[in-house]
Amino acid sequence: VPDELEIIADLARRFAPVLPVVTGIGDDGAVLDCQTASRIVVVTDMLLDGVHFDVRTTPVELIGRKSIAVNLSDLAAMACQPTAAFVSIAVPSGQTDRDVNQFIRRLYDGIDEICRQFSCSIAGGDTNSWSGPFAINVCLTGTPMRDEAILRSGGSAGDQLFVTGPLGGSLGNERHLKFTPRLKIAGWLAQNCPPTAMMDVSDGLAIDLKRLADQSGVGALVDESRIPIHADVPSQLPDEKRIAAAVADGEDFELLFAVRPEHVAVLTSASAVDGLLFHHIGELQAAPGCRLERADGHVSELPEVGWKHRF
Amino acid sequence: VPDELEIIADLARRFAPVLPVVTGIGDDGAVLDCQTASRIVVVTDMLLDGVHFDVRTTPVELIGRKSIAVNLSDLAAMACQPTAAFVSIAVPSGQTDRDVNQFIRRLYDGIDEICRQFSCSIAGGDTNSWSGPFAINVCLTGTPMRDEAILRSGGSAGDQLFVTGPLGGSLGNERHLKFTPRLKIAGWLAQNCPPTAMMDVSDGLAIDLKRLADQSGVGALVDESRIPIHADVPSQLPDEKRIAAAVADGEDFELLFAVRPEHVAVLTSASAVDGLLFHHIGELQAAPGCRLERADGHVSELPEVGWKHRF
Repeated sequence: VPDELEIIADLARRFAPVLPVVTGIGDDGAVLDCQTASRIVVVTDMLLDGVHFDVRTTPVELIGRKSIAVNLSDLAAMACQPTAAFVSIAVPSGQTDRDVNQFIRRLYDGIDEICRQFSCSIAGGDTNSWSGPFAINVCLTGTPMRDEAILRSGGSAGDQLFVTGPLGGSLGNERHLKFTPRLKIAGWLAQNCPPTAMMDVSDGLAIDLKRLADQSGVGALVDESRIPIHADVPSQLPDEKRIAAAVADGEDFELLFAVRPEHVAVLTSASAVDGLLFHHIGELQAAPGCRLERADGHVSELPEVGWKHRF
Repeated sequence: VPDELEIIADLARRFAPVLPVVTGIGDDGAVLDCQTASRIVVVTDMLLDGVHFDVRTTPVELIGRKSIAVNLSDLAAMACQPTAAFVSIAVPSGQTDRDVNQFIRRLYDGIDEICRQFSCSIAGGDTNSWSGPFAINVCLTGTPMRDEAILRSGGSAGDQLFVTGPLGGSLGNERHLKFTPRLKIAGWLAQNCPPTAMMDVSDGLAIDLKRLADQSGVGALVDESRIPIHADVPSQLPDEKRIAAAVADGEDFELLFAVRPEHVAVLTSASAVDGLLFHHIGELQAAPGCRLERADGHVSELPEVGWKHRF
């Protein structure tokens, strides 16, 4: 019978501590060396069967991958380098030992692969079984790529708004499972033109831009014609619906950021970084609220649509 | 309709960042100042409806309290001071707004109270709704009370074993919900006679002692007559069953630790600290495995019984 002790012993063997982790899986907690860092950043996201994936149809490796990737995206949004991952799982009981072992092994295959790719050490977690559906919580620690983490709250009126890739249609295919967290591009930005405010687009541009603007104490204007629409949004849809998909679908995990106007030139001339172009979509403005300007010059309120948990 | 944004805005207002947290709830992640610390310790525990509490009968405040307390107990077991808490929740959908709002408010009342008591700042988390039962994951950060965290792995043959309180019967009443995490006593130990190895008794003395001994690369002998049996274990039970309850029930959240033999005197003479006595229950030995010595001198293997998740 697989039990918690055996599973944890397996994980401890598989994931030996890598600096800055000095004590990893198998103790009451993990110990991280932070002598070279002046800031530690902590992000956390819980992924749930039937909400963020469907355990009957989503390959288990991709569930593991996504659980880490969404957190890496949060770290990218703060211009932070990942250090350690903490993975808590609730596995439905009543399966055969073989099925449970295989499920956990495949889950950690997906976790392991993306953690290696982004130099993040798997340092701890919690393993449970219960009568509910599969749930996974990941907590990541990180350190700022430059001196300080980049927050949502640092934007000012006049700052120019960019996104790192086209938006919409992520849930219609496997992009929401397979996206690349924008750590590399965040590193480039931190180095070359530090954003005044940044976040990742997880719940949709409309909701997320409102968050960034609100936290910065300003408003925003988005130029509808400049919103990059992802090829995953069906081209046969009317324009209006394609824009709505780009603005409201969510789970794009691109970075949304604001820079001082003098940085626009370097961004627009910076050709593909990480295979991407920066898309200049609008600006922050003094008047609160988020607005959308159509090609004909008509300005309307950007409706606050997108993914919100309703209870 | 209560939605995620309103709930998070409420939490951000309620829990303003307190140093070392410099950015708390409401950004992509939290930022902690770690300039005065050379080590950061991270612990995490997931609590599930039907496993660690029963949402139909357990007062919601006590679910919130326990979710923090079990993690504080892990920090105590490493002789670490808590700094920040990260709380992820999955709330069953299909309830009325009023019920959801009240549930979340009461949950955070319980979280808030114990966090204040132990000077831990609520710095982030994730709020979800789904069709499954209630689940909560808490991740805490902390810093060593002295120079280094105390691990499970530092014990040597000859070290003497202690527990910080009587064991057994915790689940029969509300002790598993209302226990005091042994942070104060961990601080006293770190100051006065640093344990060579320490952990908290969460899954039962038998299982947990084996973990400590295994990680220290040694074995252990426990004197049956010295195991302190909690008053929550029914006195009318035969002695054998009372011992079994103390050894296997789990969820005691007392500290189990080993000290060098020269520290025994100070511990046995130390009268009540935090209203407790240290119970000297046995010793670490070179021969692997955990053994129990009866009053008549008979030594048998300590059966590895207690709470383990079986899948």
